[in-house]
Amino acid sequence: MQPPKAMFFDVFGTLVDWRNSIAREAEAVLKPLGYSLDWLAFADAWRGEYQPAMEEIRTGRLRFCKLDVLHRRNLELILPRFKVSDLSEDTLRHLNLAWHRLDAWPDSAPGLKRLKVGCPIAPCSNGNITLMVALARRNEFPWDAILGSEIAGDFKPKPRVYLAACEALDLAPSDCMMVAAHSSDLAAAARNGLRTGHVARPNEYGPGTGEARPGMTVDVAGSDLVDLAAKLGL
Amino acid sequence: MQPPKAMFFDVFGTLVDWRNSIAREAEAVLKPLGYSLDWLAFADAWRGEYQPAMEEIRTGRLRFCKLDVLHRRNLELILPRFKVSDLSEDTLRHLNLAWHRLDAWPDSAPGLKRLKVGCPIAPCSNGNITLMVALARRNEFPWDAILGSEIAGDFKPKPRVYLAACEALDLAPSDCMMVAAHSSDLAAAARNGLRTGHVARPNEYGPGTGEARPGMTVDVAGSDLVDLAAKLGL
Repeated sequence: MQPPKAMFFDVFGTLVDWRNSIAREAEAVLKPLGYSLDWLAFADAWRGEYQPAMEEIRTGRLRFCKLDVLHRRNLELILPRFKVSDLSEDTLRHLNLAWHRLDAWPDSAPGLKRLKVGCPIAPCSNGNITLMVALARRNEFPWDAILGSEIAGDFKPKPRVYLAACEALDLAPSDCMMVAAHSSDLAAAARNGLRTGHVARPNEYGPGTGEARPGMTVDVAGSDLVDLAAKLGL
Repeated sequence: MQPPKAMFFDVFGTLVDWRNSIAREAEAVLKPLGYSLDWLAFADAWRGEYQPAMEEIRTGRLRFCKLDVLHRRNLELILPRFKVSDLSEDTLRHLNLAWHRLDAWPDSAPGLKRLKVGCPIAPCSNGNITLMVALARRNEFPWDAILGSEIAGDFKPKPRVYLAACEALDLAPSDCMMVAAHSSDLAAAARNGLRTGHVARPNEYGPGTGEARPGMTVDVAGSDLVDLAAKLGL
């Protein structure tokens, strides 16, 4: 096959380990205040409100807003469930920005650096621009541009998000490849004409919980991002 | 003064030498077809249509389109003046993308790499995303994001372009610095609350034609981008 002319990447779960990072960040903020929670359960609960919050916007019930805003709303939803209360505005803001302090899987930056040799690379994530910039600076993701939900004004898997990324780079969808650890994301990309690359993240929600292989036909699949680059000849 | 939390950059003239690059690219495309023009005059004529074309959009007479599209229109405007005709579509397209093949001033990439240590950096140019990505890949500009006209849907010096860049990074204008070799660009940024950094490009339109120093009060001025970084303590 012809190499893709651009590659787009899912970020949460695909490039960064949000679960262990959020657990660590929540503990760093809340433990000094005297709280002792199941930190991984806290991470899972926060992430659990992610899809329902975006669904309000996908369906048009709420106007588009940045994911940072939804994360804040979701944080305030779950804090009472963990009996956390009376946090200062500064603490809430710092805790919410835990999503800007996620660590990458070890192969993400080396893999992206190799893939960037072949063509422009950009996140096509539901995260907002600031969040993507923070994760890239922290983890040395060498993006050519920041695409995704904020330039599209909607959230994946809505078609507009994938198509806005292609249009931003003046490319036909068939010249672009979406890379993700989630078959549902890749299926949506494929429905809109993009090629697909799967990367295995078997431990995303804890050991053995993630997709070790794609649940659909994809153009290329890698055991990690460096393997994916090698399979693309990079 | 507090260091800026983000820095935005003009590109044409400020980071890249469009004039000598366009002259070289035009010669590379047209000379093999038997044309012998004043290549610098050709570059100046093409650039001469830049502001009038954007003005049609700034005033609302035409709908926003990417600068690549305006460059193509402007190219077709000037070709007859130089008695160039009957170019193939492939040749026209390749010639138009000369703007994707501009070379940087020698200090641009080293200066940006130093400035990026301090805060996120992004172009705030009238060029479209693809054009910015191509120049960055060619010249190793280490952008954190691509901001500017395309995400704003308008052209500088309209306020929206500067403000959309600040909003994309969730920053107040007063926390952001616009860097340019043109005082008119900096004056517009300052009117919208941004800080200003001037970089001297005295030879932009030929020896001694550019601004050797700012024509207004700025927050910082450098003889080149490395000097600007040093003056910001980076």
